[in-house]
Amino acid sequence: MNDVVLTEPLRVGLLGCGVVGSQVARLLLEKPEDLEARIGRPLDLVGIGVRHPDAEREGIPLDLLTGDTAALVARADIVVEVMGGLEPARSLILAAFEHGASVVTANKALLAAHGPELYGAAQRAGVDLYFEAAVAGAIPIIRPLRESLVGDEILSVMGIVNGTTNYILDRMTADGLSFGQALAQAQELGYAEADPTADIEGYDAAAKASILASLAFHTEVCGADVHREGITTVTPEDIAQAAGLGYVVKLLAVATLLDGDAERVSVRVHPALVPMSHPLATVRGPYNAVFVESRNAGRLMFSGPGAGGAPTGSAVMGDLVTVARNRARGAAGPAMTPYTHRPVAEVGDAKTSSYISLQVKDAPGVLAKVAGVFAKHGVSISAVRQTQLDGDPLTANLGIMTHVARDAQVADTLTELRTASQAVSSHIRRIRIEGE
Amino acid sequence: MNDVVLTEPLRVGLLGCGVVGSQVARLLLEKPEDLEARIGRPLDLVGIGVRHPDAEREGIPLDLLTGDTAALVARADIVVEVMGGLEPARSLILAAFEHGASVVTANKALLAAHGPELYGAAQRAGVDLYFEAAVAGAIPIIRPLRESLVGDEILSVMGIVNGTTNYILDRMTADGLSFGQALAQAQELGYAEADPTADIEGYDAAAKASILASLAFHTEVCGADVHREGITTVTPEDIAQAAGLGYVVKLLAVATLLDGDAERVSVRVHPALVPMSHPLATVRGPYNAVFVESRNAGRLMFSGPGAGGAPTGSAVMGDLVTVARNRARGAAGPAMTPYTHRPVAEVGDAKTSSYISLQVKDAPGVLAKVAGVFAKHGVSISAVRQTQLDGDPLTANLGIMTHVARDAQVADTLTELRTASQAVSSHIRRIRIEGE
Repeated sequence: MNDVVLTEPLRVGLLGCGVVGSQVARLLLEKPEDLEARIGRPLDLVGIGVRHPDAEREGIPLDLLTGDTAALVARADIVVEVMGGLEPARSLILAAFEHGASVVTANKALLAAHGPELYGAAQRAGVDLYFEAAVAGAIPIIRPLRESLVGDEILSVMGIVNGTTNYILDRMTADGLSFGQALAQAQELGYAEADPTADIEGYDAAAKASILASLAFHTEVCGADVHREGITTVTPEDIAQAAGLGYVVKLLAVATLLDGDAERVSVRVHPALVPMSHPLATVRGPYNAVFVESRNAGRLMFSGPGAGGAPTGSAVMGDLVTVARNRARGAAGPAMTPYTHRPVAEVGDAKTSSYISLQVKDAPGVLAKVAGVFAKHGVSISAVRQTQLDGDPLTANLGIMTHVARDAQVADTLTELRTASQAVSSHIRRIRIEGE
Repeated sequence: MNDVVLTEPLRVGLLGCGVVGSQVARLLLEKPEDLEARIGRPLDLVGIGVRHPDAEREGIPLDLLTGDTAALVARADIVVEVMGGLEPARSLILAAFEHGASVVTANKALLAAHGPELYGAAQRAGVDLYFEAAVAGAIPIIRPLRESLVGDEILSVMGIVNGTTNYILDRMTADGLSFGQALAQAQELGYAEADPTADIEGYDAAAKASILASLAFHTEVCGADVHREGITTVTPEDIAQAAGLGYVVKLLAVATLLDGDAERVSVRVHPALVPMSHPLATVRGPYNAVFVESRNAGRLMFSGPGAGGAPTGSAVMGDLVTVARNRARGAAGPAMTPYTHRPVAEVGDAKTSSYISLQVKDAPGVLAKVAGVFAKHGVSISAVRQTQLDGDPLTANLGIMTHVARDAQVADTLTELRTASQAVSSHIRRIRIEGE
């Protein structure tokens, strides 16, 4: 073997120098000898592509900054994309593959929108596309799904993959805050952005769910395939009622084989009641966790910091070293294997149990009418709890727990209850139950 | 590319057909088309090496069984070693490397004893040695340490990696059983072997600690380097006192950079008080969990089934598919990188806080004498709790919590207390505190 070739540096082009990018730059510049020892070749950060290359950035040598991202990609062996957004990220990554470069990305939105195109381009070019940082920050979950569990059959993946919404629900639970108050607090502390839509409406979690589902079930799921409900309509009353029943409210990303039809997958993001005894129930504040159930390994749980510059930077660096090792050996890591072509089922075909709360006139026969609507649509009730409404002796709150039922049947039940006379019921709310 | 070559099967030789081996055989024979789709090449189980090839085994075709393990290894592309023990496992694995075969093993004892020899032989042969199943059963922990966190600096790894002892301590905690009673129950349920020495004396956990430490700190640690204390002397009183202070007793495998000297590592297995609020405190029964702290990723936790045929089989299969993918591409995965050559420190140099309980004569001046011994050895006391001994008005129990101190200083304190007059103290017991 030729030592000169072996010790030639691998050129790294970094795209983006925000919260994550600046951490990656720091880690690349801080202890290069450690990285070289772990890879067998030195890494050379040849440039950082940014929109404003003249702006001072703490700890970043100015001469590394460039606005010419296309030229940077063209001279890199490995491109690290942490700029976010769909374009120009997509085009730059495709250009990297054309030049024979491998890519590490943290861009969940891009993978959710254009994953199959990018995975295919990487495979045709014989290079790597790694993306551990795209889901659950520092928590290793991509590698476990793509490699550790690749000899097993995964049945479901269920995760708290958005720290912003978990923090907000946590504050609502612990301090009884309204959604708006908790959101304001999260924004003050930097846990939520000025425009929080992507987080609170579940778009971010849906992007991650699509990635997890694609890996777990060896198929292609894009973000738009994911049924999505955010947390803006969750109320402190929902949370208090859930607590009384032994549950906490979490925004979950759920990807499962469809109950009774393993040839289809159910992928969805929505608030859910999780039993307090479930490991996911104890995941607090901005932390993330992913719970995986597989046929042979059983139940596994992965938890840790789900966001932030240093944790996400750690995940990017793990991918970068792995990809660099692969290149040093002239090899590529595992490609995607979407051979099952399992389609995503309509949410109406998903099966869960539900918690439904509604207000009814406290009069003889009303409960029978309500129960009759459930029965008509084939939704079996497992428990009913009636409480008097404060200050209104004529109205009662009903809390109804159902057995597992098709989502469409529950939806039909709710539609009929809503269109029935106000004398029967009002204020109808439903939250799915997961993890029982 | 030549399609004939690409679809030629990879020959798998399985060594061992016990609890894990029979599961691996089942998984290899059950859905070969899934494995082929994930690898890009079919796997062909060419033989199972066992001591008694004529014995019937449920679900295993008799014609696969062979007593000629050397011949089996010689015709395999990938050898899966789940026979356990040091020999002939070591020689067979070395022979596999000589033949150019890759190896997947679940054999922690072998890696703890001969790891560096085996890692070196694999690297020289340009083949893979994968061992996810050697630590914490189905829980992906080797890959996260070897790859996901390889761009980070790991500060400590702390795990419940032996399900037998965790089950025993759990029964002692929940039901107030003695060690002997809990062990008998574990044996009845199949959680402990007839000869439980390897589990209850901490040998199994020490082997796993050596593997975790080698990976986390890029050095070479063997099982004999690990300071080891088992759980046979833990009493229900220890557990009750710990509970009163907000702690649970767990057998921990601990691998950390030495406090104040990151050029050395501390690797040890011993019972420890863990705060009830720590994620490891909630790990119950035969489950395992590993808690990793790193500079950038922060605190990560991995948990799941730590043993059993199917979970361990899942981990073996994940390695087998990964190794097969590597071979299908003519590549090898990451080798070990013990470049730091960090030595293992004497346990005396480890730094922890401690809980020390002792009995003293309830007389003026005795507490001052005891406190004086701690002070003389530089061990700072953080709290003292005195309780009367039942039925003996002249004797008191002292529970002493110390600040963090060098282990040797605590040991000297205990020695002086033990050699002092019985009038001062007796029944001296100490348990380290971790996870604060």
